[in-house]
Amino acid sequence: MSKALNVGVVGATGQVGKVMRRLLEERDFPIASIRFFATARSAGTVLPFRGEDVVVEDVETADPTGLDIALFSAGATGSRAQAPRFAAAGVTVIDNSSAWRMDPDVPLVVSEVNPHAIARATKGIIANPNCTTMAAMPVLKVLHEEAGLERLIVSTYQAVSGSGLAGAEELAEQARAAVADEHLLDLVHDGSAVTMPEPVKYVRPIAFDVIPLAGSIVDDGDEETDEEKKLRNESRKILELPELLVSGTCVRVPVFTGHSLSINAEFANDITPDRARELLAAAPGVELSDVPTPLQAAGSDPSFVGRIRQDQSAPGKRGLALFISNDNLRKGAALNAVQIAEVIAATAGAASDSAEAPATASA
Amino acid sequence: MSKALNVGVVGATGQVGKVMRRLLEERDFPIASIRFFATARSAGTVLPFRGEDVVVEDVETADPTGLDIALFSAGATGSRAQAPRFAAAGVTVIDNSSAWRMDPDVPLVVSEVNPHAIARATKGIIANPNCTTMAAMPVLKVLHEEAGLERLIVSTYQAVSGSGLAGAEELAEQARAAVADEHLLDLVHDGSAVTMPEPVKYVRPIAFDVIPLAGSIVDDGDEETDEEKKLRNESRKILELPELLVSGTCVRVPVFTGHSLSINAEFANDITPDRARELLAAAPGVELSDVPTPLQAAGSDPSFVGRIRQDQSAPGKRGLALFISNDNLRKGAALNAVQIAEVIAATAGAASDSAEAPATASA
Repeated sequence: MSKALNVGVVGATGQVGKVMRRLLEERDFPIASIRFFATARSAGTVLPFRGEDVVVEDVETADPTGLDIALFSAGATGSRAQAPRFAAAGVTVIDNSSAWRMDPDVPLVVSEVNPHAIARATKGIIANPNCTTMAAMPVLKVLHEEAGLERLIVSTYQAVSGSGLAGAEELAEQARAAVADEHLLDLVHDGSAVTMPEPVKYVRPIAFDVIPLAGSIVDDGDEETDEEKKLRNESRKILELPELLVSGTCVRVPVFTGHSLSINAEFANDITPDRARELLAAAPGVELSDVPTPLQAAGSDPSFVGRIRQDQSAPGKRGLALFISNDNLRKGAALNAVQIAEVIAATAGAASDSAEAPATASA
Repeated sequence: MSKALNVGVVGATGQVGKVMRRLLEERDFPIASIRFFATARSAGTVLPFRGEDVVVEDVETADPTGLDIALFSAGATGSRAQAPRFAAAGVTVIDNSSAWRMDPDVPLVVSEVNPHAIARATKGIIANPNCTTMAAMPVLKVLHEEAGLERLIVSTYQAVSGSGLAGAEELAEQARAAVADEHLLDLVHDGSAVTMPEPVKYVRPIAFDVIPLAGSIVDDGDEETDEEKKLRNESRKILELPELLVSGTCVRVPVFTGHSLSINAEFANDITPDRARELLAAAPGVELSDVPTPLQAAGSDPSFVGRIRQDQSAPGKRGLALFISNDNLRKGAALNAVQIAEVIAATAGAASDSAEAPATASA
């Protein structure tokens, strides 16, 4: 059985932190004690947890000693500053930011895909993949095991909550202004027919628009965004395929929550849509859907996958085209972190069960 | 010089017909006379044209004799019924529907890409491509001429006006209801947080959602939509590449007008992003844009293209990734039809100029 753990949530007042708290409450997670942390600005806030009031502590000054696990959703800067301090105090950090993902001493884990990598957390830090990559991993893992994944071409449809609460508010404000404008339907003939608040979070208006630039261009001459590079690098690390060929185009769409990916995947061996559906029907964290949409995914755990077709442009039957939608705040962030903690709790429980076994059982 | 023509617009009261009328007025099109046609329901309506009142005629009973050209935007059924009758009366039909596109005796023309095909209109009918394919053709043509196009992988972001006025109204109604709901921002955590009118035109809600099923599944076992098949078949015909490999995933997004395409293109020879930009800067009907968006394209003529990168998953430098946005009602429909008519007017003008040349010039 799982061992009850002393759990901390760092960034507890943020958008992902809120989902982490809810999931820890909802799921049958074995908690011995809970502590919440945030920046000084939010410290002192009182948050409920399973009927108790919990006072949020200042992450910079709090002593983490005694925690078994800390779920971090504090941004890359916050994580770089605090995760090593927590780890040095003996806390296993499960970090949602990009800070540690490509560190060779930090495993990058999707709970259904590579839980075995948790054992390699020699720094005391485990990283959660970015939300776009996450959505695809449970789907691609089973297809890879069947046919040998070689190449991914991905175009994304990413929700504004992937940019934090500011992204969601920018979409809401622009949509409210456009809808209040008597010329809304004139957008059919003229993209400047309505007046909307100027973009702040994004480089273009996001309401009734799509922006083919999710993230920021990385200054290395490739003209790819950091999101597009994460998709390549994190897929390679999680699937343990260092040579995997990946081309991504990351696009922001006027959706509040639910990241979607249109994927053309190529394999070493033939794989048919029927066989893919059979495998995916049994895959953990995956649910088949005729027409997966972000509104369907928002508030749910699985990666919804559908529109599975043979890629007629790939050699033989070695290509599949498919579409995935997944909640970028749940599985894409908070849920996967909690699921990693659950694996650790189960492992700790199994270890202490075996420690209680008769001494004669050991060598 | 161009010859002044007797021009008809069939489907003049519809969404595309409206744009056709506006373009004929705005552009310096040589018109000797104008006639408008629609179904019986709209016949008798009076529409202005260059300061004159024009009474809409019933397309089923009107005699088309005397017209040089008829621009048809009357749907596939209307076109199948009426285009042959117009053509038999000596009228050159330029048809915007899917009815004739794959007919071997009907040229499928993008004015900048294959105007030479107009001469092959042995049935008196010329077809306009579907709006999604159209957006890509002026871009892909110049890249193909440089490097030899072999394969296209396309994911689309298609506007609701591609489904007619009913699509635009469905988006507007759902968006109005969602924005009026005090729980709008709860969509961040729950896709069912707001109440919206039930979908009618689409299989899922379209406001604050994306639907990876533009068009209808064709019942041939491929599980592709008609939109996905059109993209393959029409690209092959227009580019005169019958073996071109094409995989498309056609997705509807909550945008009023402006179809976008995320394209991974593979070529027989190397082509760099710099060379592609150089070629596209000079290509007719194309405009470079750092971040092309549908709001930018709506109301404009060119295909905006940007985010041009080397496709790192393709062999050598033989792949490009890029993003295109284009107004699906203008170039995607009405404008291309008018441009084909302009080519015909110019050709007719040249022919009559040469007919007036001294007789000694002929053999």
